[in-house]
Amino acid sequence: MPEDLLAKLRAAPVAGLSAQLRKRGLNNVTVDGVRPLVPSTKLVGPARTLRFVPNREDLFDAHGAGYNVQKRTFDTVEAGEVIVIEARGDTTAATLGDILAIRAHARGAAGIVTDGAVRDADAVAAVGIPVFTGGAHPAVLGRRHVPWDSGITIACGGTTVQPGDIIVGDSDGVIVLPPRLAEEVVDAALAQEDEDAWIAEQVAAGNPVRDLFPMNAEWRARYESWRQKR
Amino acid sequence: MPEDLLAKLRAAPVAGLSAQLRKRGLNNVTVDGVRPLVPSTKLVGPARTLRFVPNREDLFDAHGAGYNVQKRTFDTVEAGEVIVIEARGDTTAATLGDILAIRAHARGAAGIVTDGAVRDADAVAAVGIPVFTGGAHPAVLGRRHVPWDSGITIACGGTTVQPGDIIVGDSDGVIVLPPRLAEEVVDAALAQEDEDAWIAEQVAAGNPVRDLFPMNAEWRARYESWRQKR
Amino acid sequence: MPEDLLAKLRAAPVAGLSAQLRKRGLNNVTVDGVRPLVPSTKLVGPARTLRFVPNREDLFDAHGAGYNVQKRTFDTVEAGEVIVIEARGDTTAATLGDILAIRAHARGAAGIVTDGAVRDADAVAAVGIPVFTGGAHPAVLGRRHVPWDSGITIACGGTTVQPGDIIVGDSDGVIVLPPRLAEEVVDAALAQEDEDAWIAEQVAAGNPVRDLFPMNAEWRARYESWRQKR
Amino acid sequence: MPEDLLAKLRAAPVAGLSAQLRKRGLNNVTVDGVRPLVPSTKLVGPARTLRFVPNREDLFDAHGAGYNVQKRTFDTVEAGEVIVIEARGDTTAATLGDILAIRAHARGAAGIVTDGAVRDADAVAAVGIPVFTGGAHPAVLGRRHVPWDSGITIACGGTTVQPGDIIVGDSDGVIVLPPRLAEEVVDAALAQEDEDAWIAEQVAAGNPVRDLFPMNAEWRARYESWRQKR
Amino acid sequence: MPEDLLAKLRAAPVAGLSAQLRKRGLNNVTVDGVRPLVPSTKLVGPARTLRFVPNREDLFDAHGAGYNVQKRTFDTVEAGEVIVIEARGDTTAATLGDILAIRAHARGAAGIVTDGAVRDADAVAAVGIPVFTGGAHPAVLGRRHVPWDSGITIACGGTTVQPGDIIVGDSDGVIVLPPRLAEEVVDAALAQEDEDAWIAEQVAAGNPVRDLFPMNAEWRARYESWRQKR
Amino acid sequence: MPEDLLAKLRAAPVAGLSAQLRKRGLNNVTVDGVRPLVPSTKLVGPARTLRFVPNREDLFDAHGAGYNVQKRTFDTVEAGEVIVIEARGDTTAATLGDILAIRAHARGAAGIVTDGAVRDADAVAAVGIPVFTGGAHPAVLGRRHVPWDSGITIACGGTTVQPGDIIVGDSDGVIVLPPRLAEEVVDAALAQEDEDAWIAEQVAAGNPVRDLFPMNAEWRARYESWRQKR
Repeated sequence: MPEDLLAKLRAAPVAGLSAQLRKRGLNNVTVDGVRPLVPSTKLVGPARTLRFVPNREDLFDAHGAGYNVQKRTFDTVEAGEVIVIEARGDTTAATLGDILAIRAHARGAAGIVTDGAVRDADAVAAVGIPVFTGGAHPAVLGRRHVPWDSGITIACGGTTVQPGDIIVGDSDGVIVLPPRLAEEVVDAALAQEDEDAWIAEQVAAGNPVRDLFPMNAEWRARYESWRQKR
Repeated sequence: MPEDLLAKLRAAPVAGLSAQLRKRGLNNVTVDGVRPLVPSTKLVGPARTLRFVPNREDLFDAHGAGYNVQKRTFDTVEAGEVIVIEARGDTTAATLGDILAIRAHARGAAGIVTDGAVRDADAVAAVGIPVFTGGAHPAVLGRRHVPWDSGITIACGGTTVQPGDIIVGDSDGVIVLPPRLAEEVVDAALAQEDEDAWIAEQVAAGNPVRDLFPMNAEWRARYESWRQKR
Repeated sequence: MPEDLLAKLRAAPVAGLSAQLRKRGLNNVTVDGVRPLVPSTKLVGPARTLRFVPNREDLFDAHGAGYNVQKRTFDTVEAGEVIVIEARGDTTAATLGDILAIRAHARGAAGIVTDGAVRDADAVAAVGIPVFTGGAHPAVLGRRHVPWDSGITIACGGTTVQPGDIIVGDSDGVIVLPPRLAEEVVDAALAQEDEDAWIAEQVAAGNPVRDLFPMNAEWRARYESWRQKR
Repeated sequence: MPEDLLAKLRAAPVAGLSAQLRKRGLNNVTVDGVRPLVPSTKLVGPARTLRFVPNREDLFDAHGAGYNVQKRTFDTVEAGEVIVIEARGDTTAATLGDILAIRAHARGAAGIVTDGAVRDADAVAAVGIPVFTGGAHPAVLGRRHVPWDSGITIACGGTTVQPGDIIVGDSDGVIVLPPRLAEEVVDAALAQEDEDAWIAEQVAAGNPVRDLFPMNAEWRARYESWRQKR
Repeated sequence: MPEDLLAKLRAAPVAGLSAQLRKRGLNNVTVDGVRPLVPSTKLVGPARTLRFVPNREDLFDAHGAGYNVQKRTFDTVEAGEVIVIEARGDTTAATLGDILAIRAHARGAAGIVTDGAVRDADAVAAVGIPVFTGGAHPAVLGRRHVPWDSGITIACGGTTVQPGDIIVGDSDGVIVLPPRLAEEVVDAALAQEDEDAWIAEQVAAGNPVRDLFPMNAEWRARYESWRQKR
Repeated sequence: MPEDLLAKLRAAPVAGLSAQLRKRGLNNVTVDGVRPLVPSTKLVGPARTLRFVPNREDLFDAHGAGYNVQKRTFDTVEAGEVIVIEARGDTTAATLGDILAIRAHARGAAGIVTDGAVRDADAVAAVGIPVFTGGAHPAVLGRRHVPWDSGITIACGGTTVQPGDIIVGDSDGVIVLPPRLAEEVVDAALAQEDEDAWIAEQVAAGNPVRDLFPMNAEWRARYESWRQKR
């Protein structure tokens, strides 16, 4: 990902990206039910996907132990990538713990999103890598999951994530940006953010939202005039 | 609302008001599933109601855009009022964002309660107006809701709220006080709070709750004696 | 409980105990859906059980008021014990408030676990006794529950708790240790914790988890060598 | 409603109407979670709405008893209308029983849709009026609901229903047709149904769905030829 | 149970009993979420309780196998009794199968109510004993449950059942009658049923529910006159 | 699949197969939440898998229309196979309708299992192919799903299904048999079924389940003697 796109995405609120995607017909693009382990975390990066399937004891015996696909994914995640895990929203077993979070951090990964749980939650929070999760649970993944495959299109938190999709998270939640729309959407979101900040000032000063949010011609003229002076 | 009633309600814990309402036969008076955006927030004021209905695309086209009833409500909320929003407990779209929160704050509103979500959650938390919500979500309301009407009786968080009902919120949750009971209930709650604080001291000192919680005649005599000395 | 077992349990993370129990065939031993009122709380002690049944008005009239089994349990809890409450996961009424929390604290109880809610949540959090709960709610227990019996085997948060079972809680959740396994499990968990801390250091230093987590012979030799030097 | 429109709607499957509404951008138009009391029931008619709000004991005392809005609605429903009830999907209390079902039937109502429950379910099923419901429950409505108002826009089963909207139900579920689209949509649905029936015959005869569903030019030519011969 | 009380309870609809209990202040007396395996089943009898706790592998090893409390309960149920099973509403494992249903039938039991599932559902339905259940599932109980104790007060389907409580089930659901109220409640329900049947006839004949449901003085006079002639 | 294995599986109840799998350590092998469209349906065959991912509008545009993977799967299903569909348990959109069911039937498929919904439910039920589903819904799949891939391991109803796994369904539910265990498990289930039928006769004749279920040495001797005479 180009550094300037990254910088813009780091500056853009998820709510603003969501509004721009909706304008382009994309409503079902949020990973719902996850929260950052550390409040006010920002996360940006392309998705590296990992899929868990429901624990069936015979499959866990064959695929769960040893150097499984979960561990291989954390060992090979590239700098800047976000590991996104499909755990079917089941938060009664962990999908990673502190050692894997440390590994992802050491490889320079940009973050982790899982619609399952994490274990060692305090330790994971302390690692310094952004983690968005459905909750904390002490059990290892084998209680509910078999690590199955990576690098395929997955479901996570009610939306679909493809490898390479751009993942952005903040206090409002996590959103999935199709890469071909990223530049256009983030530019529009930042422009709107600029407008909204100015509108917020006018509203804080006592103006009604009527005619201002969205702006009518008169308010827009004032805004443009202010913007050019800036 | 009379200032002294307000002052008493600000001093009374929601748990105490709940106990007094239950004594008067009212059990289903709590807005469940909502939490304050900022911990240890207190909220008190009469309800200004706003109802969203499920997003049906043809209705959203006709009622969702422009200066809709959501915006009109925030533009006309009176000082001291609490905006209460029916969103059917659906937290997968926002029911307000920072600009509307700023507007409510600028108008002197006493708070906002929604059983849906908020967007721009960090910014909304920073505005300074008490907000109790079902969660945070980046999407605008049109993802799930059509803003429909205001000033009517609504359902919120499993109870019913009428315009003018007194809303009180704290860390335990949000409660709805029928106005005609407010004075009586808050007085009883504060008196009970006084008793409970004294009981808490006795229990902290090692006394059993037996005979003390509730108090038998002997303990009550001691309490009354202490209270008169105070 | 022997003091040294207690000390070891206080040092052992719940995630580590969970992994050791799973190795011994116990997967369904966590109280799910509860969180500590105060972040980063640790809780350890043998269970004192208390069961609530669903509110049936005639039973509440006969068993709910006065010096009921809830109050008797808090008045008789022994130093070091953890009160564990079955509330069927219903968090729309409280299962205790500040006065009972103070009473448990005054008796030296080691903590409280409830899959229902607490009222006076801020006050309860301030008492200083570890409390893990399904949430906060202002209503007294009679809204949903009849206090029924204590000292029997109960269901709590999806697992079963017997009087005397050892309860351990931290940020990852709450686990139930059968007493006969406690010593063996905590020793194994602490040993594993020791290993994992060393592994975490190697991973933080850039080593892959491959061959290290779990360790192959070569890494184990290095670990043993380090451990003996320590 | 014109008799020929009614006739066409009675002939059109809900699945076909749903597909046509989706083609016109309407996806959120189904009342989900309801089933007919009697299998293979068809229901068609304009909506007469009725809203229940959550039981708050003081409001029930004032609005629940006597000749309340529920009874007034059943007493005044017009021939051909479908009573649609908002009960917030709560099926732990009834929203009507046999006497009201008989009254609606006697007035010539075309059916009843409720996202709450019915009591006297066997007797209601025997009345002969189509009833779609979230389930059966013995309790009267006051257990969970206060009958509140009628003739307003309501939420039912996850969609929005306006008075006069056309309601159509069959074994697949219940759909809401905006009146201005009804003629166009039903005509398109019946035409598609005609095509689909012919396609079904070809598929039953062993043809692949490829090129046939939807039809390519060659298959369409055959279909048109068949249709003209018919 | 006296035979004439039984006969009256068999004639009384659950909905009517529910209404009478509500008049006496009892709202939370229904076992929700269960349906009869065979449509239009009637069930009446005093409760014989059986409690399952969540499967904890060590407890199942000690209590699950052999001649456990589940089997002992079915072997000792008395003629006319209804076995009521607490399974915490978990329908992902069975709580009985055909052999136990046959045993209960052979002992003359009046029925079985479980808020868990049954296995061998078709075979159980064929036995001829009334069974109300949360669903069908092929797994044996050990998948989710440990059979624990019997003859104690239990929770089932959201209400509380004491040994000896009178259980009545029909198509509307299952209700719990405290024995001391049974005679009074069933008499009142049958009297009301008589009234309601007459009212239903008047409504079927085209009369409005106004003044009739409930009856005003004039209608009551007509009803009394009719009743005396009968 | 060998014809004699098929015949044995058709004779074996799912409950019996479940018990045998549990004896071999497999508990999480049932597709939960699905029911046959036609009561008392039996379904047996190897799985042909099909995966839907959550509807993201941009992905639906690219993958949803035309001759998509859903249609290709139904066009290429082999005689005797069971199509198993992952729809994440979302029953608010259909995953197939009558034309695809006819196509599967025409190809000789042994059945369809979906944890989503079907549309044209009455018509699908009439086709004659066994269908187990989470419910009926009129909407086409695009309301919630993008048809994504087939022939991969999927999650369905809480368990995992691999292509070629043997699927068996009856009134108790649907189970997944790993092929390498099929012969052994079905033989054991049929043998147990034989025993259980004999036990059921003894219990129907008035014998207690004690010593009989499971059988002690004495009962087993009688059973063996009966079995040899047969």
